[in-house]
Amino acid sequence: MKLIRFGQEGQEKPGLILENGKRIDASAFGEDYGERFFETDGLNRLQKWAEENAATAPEIPEDVRLGAPLQRPSKIICIGLNYSDHAKESGMDLPKEPVVFFKATSSVVGPNDDLIIPKGSAKTDWEVELAVVIGKKASYVSKEDAMDYVAGYALHNDYSERAFQLERSGQWVKGKSCDTFAPIGPFIATKEEIADPHNLNLWLKVNGETMQDGSSKNLIFDIPHVISYLSQFMSLLPGDVISTGTPAGVGLGFDPPVYLKPGDVVELGIDGLGSSKQEVKAYPGE
Amino acid sequence: MKLIRFGQEGQEKPGLILENGKRIDASAFGEDYGERFFETDGLNRLQKWAEENAATAPEIPEDVRLGAPLQRPSKIICIGLNYSDHAKESGMDLPKEPVVFFKATSSVVGPNDDLIIPKGSAKTDWEVELAVVIGKKASYVSKEDAMDYVAGYALHNDYSERAFQLERSGQWVKGKSCDTFAPIGPFIATKEEIADPHNLNLWLKVNGETMQDGSSKNLIFDIPHVISYLSQFMSLLPGDVISTGTPAGVGLGFDPPVYLKPGDVVELGIDGLGSSKQEVKAYPGE
Repeated sequence: MKLIRFGQEGQEKPGLILENGKRIDASAFGEDYGERFFETDGLNRLQKWAEENAATAPEIPEDVRLGAPLQRPSKIICIGLNYSDHAKESGMDLPKEPVVFFKATSSVVGPNDDLIIPKGSAKTDWEVELAVVIGKKASYVSKEDAMDYVAGYALHNDYSERAFQLERSGQWVKGKSCDTFAPIGPFIATKEEIADPHNLNLWLKVNGETMQDGSSKNLIFDIPHVISYLSQFMSLLPGDVISTGTPAGVGLGFDPPVYLKPGDVVELGIDGLGSSKQEVKAYPGE
Repeated sequence: MKLIRFGQEGQEKPGLILENGKRIDASAFGEDYGERFFETDGLNRLQKWAEENAATAPEIPEDVRLGAPLQRPSKIICIGLNYSDHAKESGMDLPKEPVVFFKATSSVVGPNDDLIIPKGSAKTDWEVELAVVIGKKASYVSKEDAMDYVAGYALHNDYSERAFQLERSGQWVKGKSCDTFAPIGPFIATKEEIADPHNLNLWLKVNGETMQDGSSKNLIFDIPHVISYLSQFMSLLPGDVISTGTPAGVGLGFDPPVYLKPGDVVELGIDGLGSSKQEVKAYPGE
């Protein structure tokens, strides 16, 4: 299944993309895609609902906004420096174990919403990433069992303000959490839709020019490793998002670095997970 | 007002502590203390409800468990090294601007719940902190206006696993986010209950021995500064928790360091915000 949410910001309704490409309104299913949905076997219940109701459900008009394909999660956990080429371009050593940081969940927006450059920012950067959506509570799980905890996958642009992240004392979270810095989607592909999550091409273009072109086969720490590892430090809750890291080609890695400016257009995609597009806007009044 | 929540974990109900000390069930008010409550003027509505209904509301039995005094927030933002004596004992420089990290919201528990030492932990430490609860969405607010965004205050123990935090690559979040690492409460004191949040004594005892004894007058970055600062990097949402840092006296600061072990009892308190008590337990089977 491919799960979407659509409608105005803050008032999104659940929907589905069917195998024939038709997008249907799943409001009649009666639940939004959040923690409760995932933890109560929502994917299976939704599948059954769709088998009986998809053919007669209302179609979603072409011009309707897509929201993020899940409700605001309890956390967005990101893995830093998880592709060796990106660690190198960032001037950082390869990590001995996963580097972990959080992104404020208030940064989540729809896949094609505008990216708003924060006030005072000169170094807003892009990062195409494969995001994993957790399907059930995970605490101290083994690598062998880790994939049982995956609900699905989605495309994520882990926008990052490099000055806020690296030049403002301490931890990275300051440069990762601005509003609009986490466009997720267009959809969640449930686990069975993706034959091998470790062999997906990821790409990102700025103004039509390819900046990132990588493959998830080059993840330093693969998905079972990351899930098992994180679950040693905290409980992963249903609906939580893990963003697995970005390949080379971010703005910070150029010499001199290249950062986003109002008017730029960022497009990105991952095999099987669709594509998204953000127009870059200045903060109003800036 | 003093807001509490009570009942079994995950099934907490809202309540109030009245001026006469009586604890009443506020379930009949019809809302729990979460984002929606705070953003829709819930405190004023609750105040009116209490004026009419508190006298006849059911009393809460003595032996009922207290939960955290608010629903799981969108984020818990912590300020690191915000007391000069604690920065010194940690061997760190005084920060030039606030050091910011997140704590997973899945770590929140009731004020008197057990502290569970994570698997593989040898360095679980305590940190008594003054927590601020945000009352309305804050984005790019000035220091002058910042206090308008405060709903109230609460006691928080920012438990920290120092090896996970400092010896496991990268960011601090790994040592801050374990389950049970954020006992909050016993109650939220609404803003008008605390005459001067910058003149409160904070204390913490382990097995009856005083380990921390500080005052919020020694905050390096005061509450308006912290709120204004954070709001430059992310939107603070109603019900979000900001934990303002800990004074000297954590286990890491002793020579040699002193860490918690099963059987220890941690008690802490802040003027006007009550006290809490956690018994330290091993992870089952460890």
